[in-house]
Amino acid sequence: MKPTNRVKRIEGVLSPVITPFRKDYSPDAERFVAHCRWLLRSGCAGLAVFGTNSEANSLSVSEKKQLLEKLVAGGVSPAQLMPGTGHCALTDSIELTRAAVEMGCAGVLMLPPFYYKGVSDEGLYRNFAEIIERVGDERLQLYLYHIPPVSQVAISLPLIERLITKYPGIVAGVKDSSGDWSNTKAMLDAFAKTGFDVFAGSETFLLDNMRHGGKGCITATGNINPGPIANVYKYWRTADADKLQAGITATRKIVQKQPMIPALKSAVAHFGNDPQWRTCRPALVELNPSQEKELIGELKANGFSMPGLV
Amino acid sequence: MKPTNRVKRIEGVLSPVITPFRKDYSPDAERFVAHCRWLLRSGCAGLAVFGTNSEANSLSVSEKKQLLEKLVAGGVSPAQLMPGTGHCALTDSIELTRAAVEMGCAGVLMLPPFYYKGVSDEGLYRNFAEIIERVGDERLQLYLYHIPPVSQVAISLPLIERLITKYPGIVAGVKDSSGDWSNTKAMLDAFAKTGFDVFAGSETFLLDNMRHGGKGCITATGNINPGPIANVYKYWRTADADKLQAGITATRKIVQKQPMIPALKSAVAHFGNDPQWRTCRPALVELNPSQEKELIGELKANGFSMPGLV
Repeated sequence: MKPTNRVKRIEGVLSPVITPFRKDYSPDAERFVAHCRWLLRSGCAGLAVFGTNSEANSLSVSEKKQLLEKLVAGGVSPAQLMPGTGHCALTDSIELTRAAVEMGCAGVLMLPPFYYKGVSDEGLYRNFAEIIERVGDERLQLYLYHIPPVSQVAISLPLIERLITKYPGIVAGVKDSSGDWSNTKAMLDAFAKTGFDVFAGSETFLLDNMRHGGKGCITATGNINPGPIANVYKYWRTADADKLQAGITATRKIVQKQPMIPALKSAVAHFGNDPQWRTCRPALVELNPSQEKELIGELKANGFSMPGLV
Repeated sequence: MKPTNRVKRIEGVLSPVITPFRKDYSPDAERFVAHCRWLLRSGCAGLAVFGTNSEANSLSVSEKKQLLEKLVAGGVSPAQLMPGTGHCALTDSIELTRAAVEMGCAGVLMLPPFYYKGVSDEGLYRNFAEIIERVGDERLQLYLYHIPPVSQVAISLPLIERLITKYPGIVAGVKDSSGDWSNTKAMLDAFAKTGFDVFAGSETFLLDNMRHGGKGCITATGNINPGPIANVYKYWRTADADKLQAGITATRKIVQKQPMIPALKSAVAHFGNDPQWRTCRPALVELNPSQEKELIGELKANGFSMPGLV
């Protein structure tokens, strides 16, 4: 496969965009597009729509395809998109990956199939290889999504090695949401020099990741704090870097005291003065009033704001 | 909702039917129908197609709908079907549940949404309630599927109580695949007398389940050993019951030494003389030759057979 038609790889801060729902739990494309545009104006280099924080696994493939189409119709460039396309079902992963590549998305972020536990690297290799072969498109740039605390199915270093050996260029990188810096470091040490792009799964590790050859981060709190996080990426080589990192880590610590996804939605609802944003699709539930009060109070006390949201 | 149009509830032994694949991993409807018909001839009261052992979570909704249609077209009565219809995505669960009810299936066996971990009973309640309300069909009989070792999301007793209070008759029972008899016993003690049907998730607990007011079992090994398991159900009140139970437990122990789903497929491939049955969809992989040799050798040494399969 020729790499000539590939979109330039995204580097920097990506937001796994939260998905707004109407009261009947249907996805609200208008609010979704507006939030995506705000994120790009505010410092995000790209949008990892349909990530864990997007409640992507509470959405059907057809709902995700429709949102992707609305996003591009709404003026977001596919070159800034890295949608999540990994599902339990091989055929679902193929369908959404193909759609993303055909739309010209810069990449896809792919979960392993996550229902069956204790699966082998051989089985996971077959899954990713089958998707790549079936999509059969030289433009595909696939980022592996390692998030064992949620998926319970891990992406091991030997699996990465086998995939990049077989599919160089196509298997383009990884998002490491293990929460374990030593694992991210091991991925960087083993593969960064070969052109494999490692993204930290939390801005907590952004500066460390940049200092060891990483390419940025894909982080939940990118949904509400994109500007300051993007500044760490932008200024990581400067003397201010550690101070900037301490600032975004402090904000992260406030947010992650609450259940993450409803907390992000509460923040957007509050600072954007738009209560509908609080709705989560079951089995997730919105923050209760006391959780939200604590979250917003602590954010304000820390000087937090979301400039340009309203 | 009037209960008058409901199909008679299934009681006895149900098999979570394994799904055959072609070499290209597409579902093989012809082999699927043939295996279902053999199971019903061999003692199964019903078929819990699209269960964990069916690799159902490796199949898309449309693949499952097509298999269901082929099954009915192939002569299997919907009154003997309890398809699995629970997905991560609310909209997927609604779509397949509606299709099953409209086809006249006796029930549906429903996983909770299983990607997000640590969710609340409130969130799970909203999920099941939303599905029931949206399907909006008086014929629906919903069996909750409790399998925390795989789904990592549990169905608690307070959640069951809340659901059967709100939706009596519709929330018809549970499959308990916790592997913990004390949990099954607690479900029986709390709800069996109110007309809530408890199925053990393994034949290991079949006799105990019957002696405490349960209605049967839905078990992986029902795929290969349906006759002897059905005999425990049939003769559970007789003096032979414990001996019959010991026999099926011994077979179970042999099979579960290997990875369960590929082991079931190897057994059907071997005893049915049909190698294609070995294929699993990624991320599952078939048994290796030494695993299969051990499995088949031990089954034969134990006098195991699959009468009428070929």
